[in-house]
Amino acid sequence: MVYLDNAATTYPKPETVYQAMDRCMREYNANPGRSGHKMALASGRSIYKTRDLLCQLFHIDNPMQIIFTQNATDSLNLALKGLLKSGDHVVTTSMEHNSMLRPIMALEELGVENTIVQCDPTGALDPKQIEAAIKPNTKLIAMTHASNVVGTLMPVEEVGAIARERKILLLVDAAQTAGVYPIDVQKMNIDLLAAPGHKGLMGPQGTGILYIREGIALRHMKEGGTGSKSEYLTQPEILPDRYESGTPNTPGIVGLGAGVAFILEEGIEKIRAHEEELTEYFLKQLKKIQGIVLYGPQDHRKQAAVISLNLGEEDSSEVSYVLDQVFDIAVRSGLHCAPMAHKTIGTFEQGTVRFSIGYFNTREDIDKAVEALMRIKEELEA
Amino acid sequence: MVYLDNAATTYPKPETVYQAMDRCMREYNANPGRSGHKMALASGRSIYKTRDLLCQLFHIDNPMQIIFTQNATDSLNLALKGLLKSGDHVVTTSMEHNSMLRPIMALEELGVENTIVQCDPTGALDPKQIEAAIKPNTKLIAMTHASNVVGTLMPVEEVGAIARERKILLLVDAAQTAGVYPIDVQKMNIDLLAAPGHKGLMGPQGTGILYIREGIALRHMKEGGTGSKSEYLTQPEILPDRYESGTPNTPGIVGLGAGVAFILEEGIEKIRAHEEELTEYFLKQLKKIQGIVLYGPQDHRKQAAVISLNLGEEDSSEVSYVLDQVFDIAVRSGLHCAPMAHKTIGTFEQGTVRFSIGYFNTREDIDKAVEALMRIKEELEA
Repeated sequence: MVYLDNAATTYPKPETVYQAMDRCMREYNANPGRSGHKMALASGRSIYKTRDLLCQLFHIDNPMQIIFTQNATDSLNLALKGLLKSGDHVVTTSMEHNSMLRPIMALEELGVENTIVQCDPTGALDPKQIEAAIKPNTKLIAMTHASNVVGTLMPVEEVGAIARERKILLLVDAAQTAGVYPIDVQKMNIDLLAAPGHKGLMGPQGTGILYIREGIALRHMKEGGTGSKSEYLTQPEILPDRYESGTPNTPGIVGLGAGVAFILEEGIEKIRAHEEELTEYFLKQLKKIQGIVLYGPQDHRKQAAVISLNLGEEDSSEVSYVLDQVFDIAVRSGLHCAPMAHKTIGTFEQGTVRFSIGYFNTREDIDKAVEALMRIKEELEA
Repeated sequence: MVYLDNAATTYPKPETVYQAMDRCMREYNANPGRSGHKMALASGRSIYKTRDLLCQLFHIDNPMQIIFTQNATDSLNLALKGLLKSGDHVVTTSMEHNSMLRPIMALEELGVENTIVQCDPTGALDPKQIEAAIKPNTKLIAMTHASNVVGTLMPVEEVGAIARERKILLLVDAAQTAGVYPIDVQKMNIDLLAAPGHKGLMGPQGTGILYIREGIALRHMKEGGTGSKSEYLTQPEILPDRYESGTPNTPGIVGLGAGVAFILEEGIEKIRAHEEELTEYFLKQLKKIQGIVLYGPQDHRKQAAVISLNLGEEDSSEVSYVLDQVFDIAVRSGLHCAPMAHKTIGTFEQGTVRFSIGYFNTREDIDKAVEALMRIKEELEA
């Protein structure tokens, strides 16, 4: 199978990820942070090691400011609901995933106002419009780093500068960029960074992170056992315990650590260069085919390795189905959990066929995808 | 190492659990419920299979009523906060884990009343006291199936009958019993069942379940992408999507499925008989040693395979440390995240040394533990 659904979950993972998870499960996976015996300590250390690697990747000073969650959705819910209260205002964009928009809509019912800044039909965001949306009660700017529908890269650094100047917090959803694009929470003035473990970070599903800048206190979403301050019936204040209740996903976090170690060793520049090169090549080939409608920036320098298209008016699900069944090519169709993004690019009814490239894809994979699309088009026209 | 910390996380797991997780990661782990290609469908099917196996184990009719969570703490938070609102009253017990008590205390601040029924010094609960605690606004009885500190088995079936008669809902925390003791949600009148995947169910950390009886609507704790109803900015109503936002932990859930399949194949009676036999043997040997203070029922028919003790006045952490360092025996010391339970049994200051037996323990493991305790005692007395 040619796997071009990496924006959903990257596949395959580095061999070291498989090995690290299996070794954790078989050799030392006791309960970290609770018991004090050798195996429990080994589990605890392995989790700390992942925190440390994530700090290196994102230029974070204090590993305790990284909270492990279930997925990026979990991270975004914790960030948004932990921070915003009735009377606050949040600025977001029309290119967000439902994991950002649905919590913001839920908060609206609790009296949290929002402004959704309209992006242009390629998904591009004008930072000036973010600035224009700021009100006296704006507490947070919450935005994606790249669209999961068309890959459009967002001007996070510019928005970060605006946020800093206006003393507003910045929450970034790095679901499509973490592990592939350089993210420096200090330089980019990111106060809260949410990312899934199972996409560009090369870890397994069941992992996500939320970085919280020191000094920002969120309401916790859950209470429970933390292995710390067990004598109290209230949640401890210290991080990460305050936000991490119950037994953590040690094998998952270990796999995530192996994924991040792979990225640091390989070099993020090399990873991005490879994905950019394939995106450029794919776009070039696609533009030669008449009748293919391309969305987004259509420029490998302006988009992550996510390419959305349609074959004329053809139903996107139908095309994806044929790609899978006839050509053994895995893509995703439909709305990709981002309805406003589809309204922005004009594909709310039809959806798109989304090809998303990962570090382990090759030029040959792209050739096969192009060939398949050409054949489907011929078939449709016959 | 002799691993006797199974109440925290069972170890080892059945070989099939390791294999199933690794195969999932390597062969088919795309994004379930989102994309429609072969690998995504295989992931989706594997998750459904785990739901189905859990239904068999707990006598649940509809697999869609099982929600996958991060751990039992996550499940309990969803159940308690999803159900209770200002003005409601919840009855619980003094033997609960912090994963139950801390959310109940947090809810108190939101106007949810509670009554904590006092258990006797062995941890035993008199169902009549539960009944006596019921008030006109009692909406829920929330209790553990067995104490994580001393193993005391709770009269869930009797309480279930009371709950049914009084038309009150019953939430059971099966952290120490799921996979070892028979649980029939219908016969026991359990409306909400929370369990971790990584204890008796033999799955990996990072998994938990909440069964919600059909007809009970909880507030969801999170919103986000569900792969369903993507066109809406509000959370879908259908289960399990309503409560499962974001990419699920497919490899974890697959591992959990392999664990539950192992239990169903082995037979829960055989598993329980083995744990009971070792508990009986351990208690018998311990009672021969002067100066060992035993807590809880001290009767294998009245407790799960959890044995708490102290060596006279000796600090529980110190004893655990020596057991680990000198004898290579893994146990847990301290309060085990259950401060009220320690107040109930009278060990709030000292904590206890907790030995917890799993299906893969042997009589030889017990002999080693007894021998080690005798040697530590001699050393202390010398």
